[in-house]
Amino acid sequence: MATPLIAMEEALSRILAGLRPVGAETVSLSEGWGRILAAPVTARLTQPPADVSAMDGYALRAEDGAVGTVLRVVGAAPAGHPFAGRVGPGEAVRIFTGGAVPEGADTILLQEDAVAGDGSVTSTEAPRPARHIRRAGLDFAAGDVLVESGRRLTAREIGLAAAANHPWLLVHRRPRVAILATGDEIVLPGDPLPAGSIVSSNAHALAALVRASGADALVLPIAVDDRDAIAAAAESAGGCDLLVTTGGASVGEHDLVQAALAPLGFTLDFWKIALRPGKPLISGHFRGMPMLGLPGNPVSALVCSVLFLIPALRRLGGLPAAPIETRPAVLGRDLPANDHRQDYLRAAFSRDAEGRITATPFPVQDSSMLRFLAASGGLVVRAPHAPAAPVGSAVQVVDLSSLGV
Amino acid sequence: MATPLIAMEEALSRILAGLRPVGAETVSLSEGWGRILAAPVTARLTQPPADVSAMDGYALRAEDGAVGTVLRVVGAAPAGHPFAGRVGPGEAVRIFTGGAVPEGADTILLQEDAVAGDGSVTSTEAPRPARHIRRAGLDFAAGDVLVESGRRLTAREIGLAAAANHPWLLVHRRPRVAILATGDEIVLPGDPLPAGSIVSSNAHALAALVRASGADALVLPIAVDDRDAIAAAAESAGGCDLLVTTGGASVGEHDLVQAALAPLGFTLDFWKIALRPGKPLISGHFRGMPMLGLPGNPVSALVCSVLFLIPALRRLGGLPAAPIETRPAVLGRDLPANDHRQDYLRAAFSRDAEGRITATPFPVQDSSMLRFLAASGGLVVRAPHAPAAPVGSAVQVVDLSSLGV
Repeated sequence: MATPLIAMEEALSRILAGLRPVGAETVSLSEGWGRILAAPVTARLTQPPADVSAMDGYALRAEDGAVGTVLRVVGAAPAGHPFAGRVGPGEAVRIFTGGAVPEGADTILLQEDAVAGDGSVTSTEAPRPARHIRRAGLDFAAGDVLVESGRRLTAREIGLAAAANHPWLLVHRRPRVAILATGDEIVLPGDPLPAGSIVSSNAHALAALVRASGADALVLPIAVDDRDAIAAAAESAGGCDLLVTTGGASVGEHDLVQAALAPLGFTLDFWKIALRPGKPLISGHFRGMPMLGLPGNPVSALVCSVLFLIPALRRLGGLPAAPIETRPAVLGRDLPANDHRQDYLRAAFSRDAEGRITATPFPVQDSSMLRFLAASGGLVVRAPHAPAAPVGSAVQVVDLSSLGV
Repeated sequence: MATPLIAMEEALSRILAGLRPVGAETVSLSEGWGRILAAPVTARLTQPPADVSAMDGYALRAEDGAVGTVLRVVGAAPAGHPFAGRVGPGEAVRIFTGGAVPEGADTILLQEDAVAGDGSVTSTEAPRPARHIRRAGLDFAAGDVLVESGRRLTAREIGLAAAANHPWLLVHRRPRVAILATGDEIVLPGDPLPAGSIVSSNAHALAALVRASGADALVLPIAVDDRDAIAAAAESAGGCDLLVTTGGASVGEHDLVQAALAPLGFTLDFWKIALRPGKPLISGHFRGMPMLGLPGNPVSALVCSVLFLIPALRRLGGLPAAPIETRPAVLGRDLPANDHRQDYLRAAFSRDAEGRITATPFPVQDSSMLRFLAASGGLVVRAPHAPAAPVGSAVQVVDLSSLGV
């Protein structure tokens, strides 16, 4: 082929450069978990709004708290019910965690350091001034930026947004991804299975990966290896943010995706990457919609999705443009020197007591073997022309399970 | 108080011992991602179903493949369209990746090693026998167990189940969790905010945590600090698998949850745990439904949820009974010796190039401060009576973000 191989990193940065985050939508606070914030969450109030007690006990003037002093209990300040009066000399107010410290009081006598009488209380341990009082604004003050835009919201951040008085959140809408599986030989799971056919697995695995990445998948009907069928299917992806195809991206006579879409306005960016598994990969635009054409082999399709589709989905969804994260591991088997293609080897992971991963690549790396892929902890990354690596070498790995993949 | 403190591990194992996994439901394959499998996925077919070509090229008899031999092309075998005849001496069949190897052929001549003529093909590189053929059953054979019961399904496993011809999956239904926030002082985000009141954050943070753990949350109306109100709210949790309350679990006069529920058939298991933050914690059963009573402090409530509620949700959902996972880290600050309570310190995380975490506990650990909790990487675990630990010490941490919390 005349088309030169291009490097993995260049391919990814060219794909990401063509993508813009999708717009925002308003969701209720309770729908916000896992969504990507499109505007900062700013505190709408000060928390706590006033000085409050951190414990159950009595609010009083520290100078009145000497052991044995009998104080008159003039009222109560449970959380939510501030005491309206003022604590004077020789007086105390019964107080509970979260209750507002009444005017005049400057410390809290813990209830375990007090003996309650009939309308009175006696200290058994002198409280120091300012003890057990949470100052107004200890947690945050009105106007503070509490959660930055562009973060995937955690449960803690949902709680913080609630405490800051936000019933609504502005988040990026979920990107819409159309998935088109092509091939004469594939049929849907459970459907009649003529001789020579295989069950379609790519579209469903990709839809799950899309969902795991916070986007919505539209699984288009399978297109047979026919230009018109592929063109019709691709046209039904209108309104989506990304079109993903699988199959038909190779170099044989049955590689029809490009041929089918070119007359309809498909513009090709590149399509051969120095990568294993997954060399044939189409990137381009179809009527303004970004398109990613993945290989038909299920292992190649999933590995390419992790390397290209997940970063693309994150970028569309409002997260920063970045390659998929890798982490360090120790090699569990000798590896020969690598050729000119970046390699992603399916490997079993084991973790020691210190959390270190030993990654042992499977001896057979055939890109049709889904079972090994499903059983693997992740992928060992091998750079182009990497020298032979003996067992024990430091390597970088992609932890697939942590991605929900 | 007469009630003795009980240890963290004992508390968790007592909670988990009272829980049984919820029942199963049938979901479509495309709904299966992230669900917990309730029955193994067994291969319904053999994959590949026959010997197939791994490449595009020509199927022939290896003995006919010597360089320069001209072979007659007698047919084609694209994927999905097996060649009906037999490959005889001096013959070849055009074949594509995934196409069935025709009877008589025993190797694949790669198309890049072949020169196609008019109805003929000439080898430019002799193929070895059995090259580029994927044997029937290379990936899996009918009857093989491909995914074990009790696993949270990944995108890869969805793909594998599809390839094994399963349009449906048997998964545990999502546990239903009722969340009841109590307190006179709390109001819903965005609602009118009388003096002394604070915005309710626990219920929403817990609902997000419940969702992050694969369960469904029912957020009950806030109950004021009144026995009847609490009792009425708890009764509306009927049909749930777990009732979680926040607030009212402490030792003050306003701790009404137990008092409210006891007349209605609440049986108490234990309620004080040697734990910080979070000592007051109720575990018991309300009319046969397990109940967990969390502290009202938002930080305590979230930390206790990570330690007790997530393991409970996993167990209810069909995963093994196990404590929350910890991982090794290096301490970023000197810590004093610990007292008799297990401590979970909010800490900033930083990761070095090797992926090692340095965890630096915040100097202020007040359990009302949601902002520090939201900003923390996770929690540093300090065992009861742990000796002073200098900066650089090895510690175990809970990685909150990886839990979606």
